[in-house]
Amino acid sequence: MGKAYDVMAATCPSRTVLHRIGARWTVFVVTALADGPMRFTELKARIEGITPKVLTETLRALETDGLVHRAALGGSPPRVEYSLTPLGRSLWVPLQAVRDWAETHVPEILDAQARSEAAVGG
Amino acid sequence: MGKAYDVMAATCPSRTVLHRIGARWTVFVVTALADGPMRFTELKARIEGITPKVLTETLRALETDGLVHRAALGGSPPRVEYSLTPLGRSLWVPLQAVRDWAETHVPEILDAQARSEAAVGG
Repeated sequence: MGKAYDVMAATCPSRTVLHRIGARWTVFVVTALADGPMRFTELKARIEGITPKVLTETLRALETDGLVHRAALGGSPPRVEYSLTPLGRSLWVPLQAVRDWAETHVPEILDAQARSEAAVGG
Repeated sequence: MGKAYDVMAATCPSRTVLHRIGARWTVFVVTALADGPMRFTELKARIEGITPKVLTETLRALETDGLVHRAALGGSPPRVEYSLTPLGRSLWVPLQAVRDWAETHVPEILDAQARSEAAVGG
């Protein structure tokens, strides 16, 4: 029996899902929220360099995909908290592995890049 | 002791590495080459919808980062084969987990998207 979904097939919806996962800031937001619910300002402080506009767009896309839950907690000024849904938490597992890989293999990648530059430059 | 690299820090080189991993077609090329060395035309056929230009650029970036090895095998016309380096093979492990997640959770994502649209549209 074949798989129901296959990212190698151009029209498979899993490809859209994969592209959304790979979106530039998805891994940062999912990783930050894995520590627990956060307010917008807390998220922004945790993810260095993200702009408010991009954070807003990323949160909205993750909410649309059912990965992040947005809770309006009331109060004045009104408090809003973001958290991972169970689906978002399940995505955190493979994304964490990718993040770990990136942080672990920096020296090898930098070495390879330096060798490539030397080969081109020399 | 703190970690040497942290993607949450704006200037950490691991962030660049992570962005390269997340590049739109990286996961497809790494996944395809996990089955064994391939020629350009085989890769293009395996990854539906990728253009020759984008495949060339993706292979070049992966070669620069030390993830893909390009072997000129001679002959006439000359044969060129691409394969994963040991570093590229180590990246395949977490990327495979991301791909599996995408293929497994398509129905839940599509459901969430439909609910979001209904909420906005209704």
